[in-house]
Amino acid sequence: METLTTDKSFGGIQGVYRHAASQTNCDMTFAVYMPPQAETTAVPVLWYLSGLTCSHANVMEKGEYRRMAAKLGLAIVAPDTSPRGPDIPNEPDNWQFGIGAGFYVDASEAPYAQNYRMYSYILDELPVLVGDAFNVDMNRQGIFGHSMGGHGALIMALRNPDRFSSLSAFAPIVSPSTAEWTTYAFTQYLGGNTAMWRAYDAVALVEDGHCFPEILVDQGDADSFLDDGLRPSLLERAVAETSSALTLRMQPGYGHSYYFISSFMDDHLHWHAARL
Amino acid sequence: METLTTDKSFGGIQGVYRHAASQTNCDMTFAVYMPPQAETTAVPVLWYLSGLTCSHANVMEKGEYRRMAAKLGLAIVAPDTSPRGPDIPNEPDNWQFGIGAGFYVDASEAPYAQNYRMYSYILDELPVLVGDAFNVDMNRQGIFGHSMGGHGALIMALRNPDRFSSLSAFAPIVSPSTAEWTTYAFTQYLGGNTAMWRAYDAVALVEDGHCFPEILVDQGDADSFLDDGLRPSLLERAVAETSSALTLRMQPGYGHSYYFISSFMDDHLHWHAARL
Repeated sequence: METLTTDKSFGGIQGVYRHAASQTNCDMTFAVYMPPQAETTAVPVLWYLSGLTCSHANVMEKGEYRRMAAKLGLAIVAPDTSPRGPDIPNEPDNWQFGIGAGFYVDASEAPYAQNYRMYSYILDELPVLVGDAFNVDMNRQGIFGHSMGGHGALIMALRNPDRFSSLSAFAPIVSPSTAEWTTYAFTQYLGGNTAMWRAYDAVALVEDGHCFPEILVDQGDADSFLDDGLRPSLLERAVAETSSALTLRMQPGYGHSYYFISSFMDDHLHWHAARL
Repeated sequence: METLTTDKSFGGIQGVYRHAASQTNCDMTFAVYMPPQAETTAVPVLWYLSGLTCSHANVMEKGEYRRMAAKLGLAIVAPDTSPRGPDIPNEPDNWQFGIGAGFYVDASEAPYAQNYRMYSYILDELPVLVGDAFNVDMNRQGIFGHSMGGHGALIMALRNPDRFSSLSAFAPIVSPSTAEWTTYAFTQYLGGNTAMWRAYDAVALVEDGHCFPEILVDQGDADSFLDDGLRPSLLERAVAETSSALTLRMQPGYGHSYYFISSFMDDHLHWHAARL
């Protein structure tokens, strides 16, 4: 693992790191904020998964998480959203597929299966690296994310409730397998057998019996992607009468950007800290 | 004035606006955050002047001011750092001069005098526009900034103590007229008569009898520009035994970036709110 930058912020250290990842067959960059408490004790880890077109940097620059993470003693890890590099199969003009749009799946289809394995990268490979390199307590992990990354957080936690103690999302894509704007990516990564898509769709996972005890979702009601891409009501309907409890907060006047995310970042960090 | 974007954030509105400015002879873009209190009452205005290479956007994206500005009821205005556009005289390879490096002076030298009038633009022209367009109380104005913008805040307030009720800076260039890395810009904008430079140099202004009752300065001690560009000790020495009281806080381990600025943003907003 190579250290690209470290900057002191709110008493802790915001770092950016790079490593050769085997799951994605390329170098991967990620950001870690270590709060000041980590100087003396192993701190819980909160994974933040970013949305379409983002890298590790967007939430690091605009998410406004460091003040409260420093106060609560949380490490925040922000991975990239896809494999990335000149050799990675891509469609440069399509922001909903390819680089910046890995959708947190393990692709089964050529030529994507060689690199687009973000599910296993984030669930299995990166945690080993983080657990070795930082003073973190891997028995206390939470996960959250935004948009495509909210989708990623939901599916990771629903499929691995023993791994993650807390779960939340900002404006998540709750059913990518049925949203017009995401089915193209699912077809390219996973092929045409839509039964295989259900393992990467939060609503389908809930329908298939997966559950997570408590889920917090914030959604701006002025979000232009609300009705065709995000559709949190589908998740609300799916979890009704299951053992998953969803707190869905519609936030009046808020959009889809980091101006929305940062406004409710403190609430999400409190939510996770209380459960970690 | 044209509205480019508005986004709800922390209950208020972060907007970006553009207007045809007469002082700079070009379109100028600026950012305004209006806190929720402005829906019912005229709020104080806090001017934030940015550093070299920045536009209005850097502090808007990375400054983390909205949470506390919303709590304290402060409008935050972030102007650009220079005239900007294809017709503006510039040296594209020089980050310390020209576009992004207006140094908050009114240039006297050709060809810069036609556009590089950031002192008058920020002191006289933009406040009229802001006072007309937003629900602000122009009798309550404070000013702060970073690096070159900290220099701008210091000279604006020292020369206009009746205009501004509060003053602070992050890592300011306290004596640009004597710093190797800034004298080139001063020569180009203001000519070779260094006596004329003193009106745009905080240390010289203090030496020449200007004062401001209370000044807060935060400075990271791991800032790579500390010794050749910034040199806050020169200001500390100049204000000694004057009626200006300087609170200079050396912050251990902090650098020059927005990771530093955001860490102490809350302190600065409290400082201004208490004096506005």
